[in-house]
Amino acid sequence: MITIGVIGATGYAGYETVRLLLNHSEFTITTLVSKSFAGKKISTIYPNLAGVCDLVLEELNYDKILKKASCFIVALPHGTSQDVIATLYKAGKKIVDLSADYRYTNQALYETTYNVPHKYESILKKAVYGLPELFKENLTNCQLVANPGCYPTCSLLGLAPLIDSGLIDLTSIIIDAVSGVTGAGRKQDLMYQFNECTENFLAYKVASHRHTSEIEEKLSLLADENINVTFTPHLAPMKRGMMATIYSTLLKPITASDLYKVYNNYYQNEYFIRVKEHDQMVNTKQVVGSNFVDISVHVDSKTNKAIIVSAIDNIGKGASSQAIQNLNLMYGFDEKLGISQPGTYL
Amino acid sequence: MITIGVIGATGYAGYETVRLLLNHSEFTITTLVSKSFAGKKISTIYPNLAGVCDLVLEELNYDKILKKASCFIVALPHGTSQDVIATLYKAGKKIVDLSADYRYTNQALYETTYNVPHKYESILKKAVYGLPELFKENLTNCQLVANPGCYPTCSLLGLAPLIDSGLIDLTSIIIDAVSGVTGAGRKQDLMYQFNECTENFLAYKVASHRHTSEIEEKLSLLADENINVTFTPHLAPMKRGMMATIYSTLLKPITASDLYKVYNNYYQNEYFIRVKEHDQMVNTKQVVGSNFVDISVHVDSKTNKAIIVSAIDNIGKGASSQAIQNLNLMYGFDEKLGISQPGTYL
Amino acid sequence: MITIGVIGATGYAGYETVRLLLNHSEFTITTLVSKSFAGKKISTIYPNLAGVCDLVLEELNYDKILKKASCFIVALPHGTSQDVIATLYKAGKKIVDLSADYRYTNQALYETTYNVPHKYESILKKAVYGLPELFKENLTNCQLVANPGCYPTCSLLGLAPLIDSGLIDLTSIIIDAVSGVTGAGRKQDLMYQFNECTENFLAYKVASHRHTSEIEEKLSLLADENINVTFTPHLAPMKRGMMATIYSTLLKPITASDLYKVYNNYYQNEYFIRVKEHDQMVNTKQVVGSNFVDISVHVDSKTNKAIIVSAIDNIGKGASSQAIQNLNLMYGFDEKLGISQPGTYL
Amino acid sequence: MITIGVIGATGYAGYETVRLLLNHSEFTITTLVSKSFAGKKISTIYPNLAGVCDLVLEELNYDKILKKASCFIVALPHGTSQDVIATLYKAGKKIVDLSADYRYTNQALYETTYNVPHKYESILKKAVYGLPELFKENLTNCQLVANPGCYPTCSLLGLAPLIDSGLIDLTSIIIDAVSGVTGAGRKQDLMYQFNECTENFLAYKVASHRHTSEIEEKLSLLADENINVTFTPHLAPMKRGMMATIYSTLLKPITASDLYKVYNNYYQNEYFIRVKEHDQMVNTKQVVGSNFVDISVHVDSKTNKAIIVSAIDNIGKGASSQAIQNLNLMYGFDEKLGISQPGTYL
Repeated sequence: MITIGVIGATGYAGYETVRLLLNHSEFTITTLVSKSFAGKKISTIYPNLAGVCDLVLEELNYDKILKKASCFIVALPHGTSQDVIATLYKAGKKIVDLSADYRYTNQALYETTYNVPHKYESILKKAVYGLPELFKENLTNCQLVANPGCYPTCSLLGLAPLIDSGLIDLTSIIIDAVSGVTGAGRKQDLMYQFNECTENFLAYKVASHRHTSEIEEKLSLLADENINVTFTPHLAPMKRGMMATIYSTLLKPITASDLYKVYNNYYQNEYFIRVKEHDQMVNTKQVVGSNFVDISVHVDSKTNKAIIVSAIDNIGKGASSQAIQNLNLMYGFDEKLGISQPGTYL
Repeated sequence: MITIGVIGATGYAGYETVRLLLNHSEFTITTLVSKSFAGKKISTIYPNLAGVCDLVLEELNYDKILKKASCFIVALPHGTSQDVIATLYKAGKKIVDLSADYRYTNQALYETTYNVPHKYESILKKAVYGLPELFKENLTNCQLVANPGCYPTCSLLGLAPLIDSGLIDLTSIIIDAVSGVTGAGRKQDLMYQFNECTENFLAYKVASHRHTSEIEEKLSLLADENINVTFTPHLAPMKRGMMATIYSTLLKPITASDLYKVYNNYYQNEYFIRVKEHDQMVNTKQVVGSNFVDISVHVDSKTNKAIIVSAIDNIGKGASSQAIQNLNLMYGFDEKLGISQPGTYL
Repeated sequence: MITIGVIGATGYAGYETVRLLLNHSEFTITTLVSKSFAGKKISTIYPNLAGVCDLVLEELNYDKILKKASCFIVALPHGTSQDVIATLYKAGKKIVDLSADYRYTNQALYETTYNVPHKYESILKKAVYGLPELFKENLTNCQLVANPGCYPTCSLLGLAPLIDSGLIDLTSIIIDAVSGVTGAGRKQDLMYQFNECTENFLAYKVASHRHTSEIEEKLSLLADENINVTFTPHLAPMKRGMMATIYSTLLKPITASDLYKVYNNYYQNEYFIRVKEHDQMVNTKQVVGSNFVDISVHVDSKTNKAIIVSAIDNIGKGASSQAIQNLNLMYGFDEKLGISQPGTYL
Repeated sequence: MITIGVIGATGYAGYETVRLLLNHSEFTITTLVSKSFAGKKISTIYPNLAGVCDLVLEELNYDKILKKASCFIVALPHGTSQDVIATLYKAGKKIVDLSADYRYTNQALYETTYNVPHKYESILKKAVYGLPELFKENLTNCQLVANPGCYPTCSLLGLAPLIDSGLIDLTSIIIDAVSGVTGAGRKQDLMYQFNECTENFLAYKVASHRHTSEIEEKLSLLADENINVTFTPHLAPMKRGMMATIYSTLLKPITASDLYKVYNNYYQNEYFIRVKEHDQMVNTKQVVGSNFVDISVHVDSKTNKAIIVSAIDNIGKGASSQAIQNLNLMYGFDEKLGISQPGTYL
């Protein structure tokens, strides 16, 4: 068994990573780090784990943790993550970083978007963007993976075949997205209080969400030209689940069934991507609890638009299970190991 | 007090109309018609009404009901409503029809969209489309009002100032909309079962929803040229509430604050429309339980898009309270009578 | 119109009181006090009120507010409320206090339960416990009303006819109760975060909730002997609504239909109490949004138990609408004024 | 791998059994039977399974299925199950039956409770009641296990240590229970429609639920004397999760910490039972998605009551994962195999 540590183990993404690793045949958790709860068992914070995982949370003491584990998943806030990653990297550990700190190729874009300087340019250049369905070859045997944001995961996987196909006007892309409330993390904010969230739907950060630049950078990379997108996130009254409804203008007419073929062909070797046939609807509950991505494709011939609906579990494929998929690839394992289960549905 | 009847009183829209009328100072309910539950008290079907409204539901017997009420709100399924409206109309009653049967100016478009012939061309021509904020002058003293669909109400009110302003490319309109589950009505469908709906978000009838043609016809009327739109409805796990996020391409640059002025000016005399200032978010819970429409306006200058977010209560402004607003106007009353209350928020 | 002020207007109970008063024909709100948000419009905090109530929140400046209003509803935390009430009382104002500070006849019991000394013994003696269905005669023309807690309202109204009837063993009472999350108020506590509450049910403060002593004091008063009860509160994943399932041992056999008669007779003149006939279930949604109390009565003849199910809206009859009912009685109005509406159901 | 079939695979309990078996190292599903959907892939009905389990559902053709599998889990309605079980039993198959048909020792009690005759008295006598924590020794190597009902599982595990200890008055037991909506199964009933269930809490079948007699029979067996209980089920607005709050009168005083010791001792060897220490609350979300049972113990010394709070996942430990636990024991495997995972929490 490979020894693994999770740093930032009590936030939602960290916790979910722990829960998934407990079910993995090749990794064994040897250290859990939490600034807020060091000294307590993780099962005190997440009592569902009692009897299954009662590890005591530790301070971030490098002397200790570097000896304990050969790889790490880091689930710290943006900005905070930079230094930790750098230290682990220099110590030769394999790392998956869930923050935005090592996601950007363009360092300046990161700094503008997150309003912090990046102190580790050389490490940033080594980091691989961990979206396996698009960049799988880069992931094998790499040392540092930057796990994509949830909205970028959902949006990029929905768009990649369209970009690749040359079918659309690249200036016309609009992404209308919806997230469950776990996207906001484990925090005590009035806005995310039950009474405020339940039975409510809202748009937020319209045309100003930070994930926009991440989406644009990776799309531009795929298209080999600069792409801007219009991106609007919303919050729906559910814990988990994410959907992107993506609009773009077709350069020439195509039928929905031909567009389906484009998608089905593009993703034919991808276990985790399911392109829906014509009469099937995409529901977030069909992917929640899993690493799957469900995609349906539509054409509005009257207005000449391609409409793509893409759904993921925001803290599964959008965070924790994708981190494990990346880890599997970094070690040369089958990418499905420990995360092949279907969504829970109920 | 003016005597009023509600036909189709036990569906959700019919029921909500009854509940609102109980609080109206000028109308008194004298007959409630229900095919399924005739002979039972409405408070047997909706026990929350016990002690407040215990009227016995009746068969649709014109001899009886025409004597009992001078006006009617009709909440029957599309197709079924046609004949009932025609009979009431010929008897000289004032009517608000919640179905689609009398909404279209273009009879053929109705027939294609709903796949039923229209048998009452002459009455259809007399019907007024009941969206008061856009067509108030037509409503005064008219006899028959076709209450708009919920998605058209939310979309048209979000788009009207943009159309009027000449600021956008009319071929570029995309409406991404979300509804609560009451939009599906009171039916025993597996898809709308609690276990299937809760914690789930889905897209449905992508580029094929029937409300699209209603939106297009009225937008074309406003613009005085033919407009097609891309329209995608979604279902969110909440009872009530509707949001439309509307995208269009700006013909020339404009700031968000100037666009706010356009909207604020356009709706300056409208009590029920609240255009949000820059830093305020639109939340469905702020309009649910009311007849209000909350609108926020945004500009994505990088992609040259106007983004409008519009929210209503799908069975309030999207159905029942708008029906009462229309009724108020038909009788020359203040449009707010009985429906001026704010959303419940909690 | 009688001028009224609400102190503590931005907590959930204060806010709900404001919302209900906006619909009252005899009271007009002239001042809203909020420590946290003084200087802001209440519609900034609750944007659903925009255009309906845009009053600016004030500091608690007695010089100003005593001139502005002739009566007050006070929705402050326990302990804090004492002094405010005393000042208003001495100024001759009529007051409804939503806190526990003036609810107890037994001052020592209050002090033990809430762990604060009571500084106004003489005013405490003048306060009337505002549960109109049980103590209506005391309320007419009184100056200070202590509005009951939500659990006591639900429990006492469920138990009163049993106590009065002499049918049960008074040592056998068990109250198993459930509340919606608004019962916790408008606070930023992790436990009440959406992700933590939704899809979850829990028991809390088992055999140790503070409302127990309030229930016991009032039951003992009704029975004219000392009564202890077992009381267990639970939290259900819903905003509003409260249910008490109450168990007690019958001293001699009785049928459910005879027990129904006992209840129906006891409450025959009470508009807000609906005793359900045999085959009707009590649902919280049938009372939420209203001042109604729904009660069903059952007998388990095998175990000799009476089982009473009682439901209210925890922030309606359990707080804000009951405050207005009390206010109506204090002024000699019909108790239903402004609060006669049925539950919203949807 | 042992071949296994699931009969009634498209109801919620059948489906959940399939989902869990997919993760089991010793069993491989070789046949799925569904009357309603024979000929379709199970992933058509539960699209979350697409790509993971695409088995085609079959008719109940014994010639075929008896050849395909050496054991079966049967998730059919009460009454319907009897014949199927008998046929499988006679063919020598190992069976876990999720229905009530083989749960009762007292055949007449079954017949009265479910209002159907039992046609297989001799097989009924061979069936073992599958509550492993109480009857583990009976399960090893038996052929037919009757899986307990969800309410009985939750109630019996909460009560067993109290019964065993002799601490309580056996005539005083009251069980106040709450279930999530999946307890109602996959059906199109208006009462379970999203709009009807959400934001609602209700009591149903007060003192008349069929699980009462199952609880009473097994408690009587444990106590070796006849026990009746008062049982009230409620429905909470959540998919999964069940809680029983259990009241009984103590024969002599005991502290909560001593009662904790009684429970902790009783269940010291049981992996799936977690007795909570004093300051820990039981939450359904801590067991949902798992086979765990969380129990907290309390004493109300003023009223001399023991109060036990017990929580399970109604379709996990209350149905599907308990079926697999039983299956593991029938085959001599570790009972945890395939079902050792913690609750999902989020």
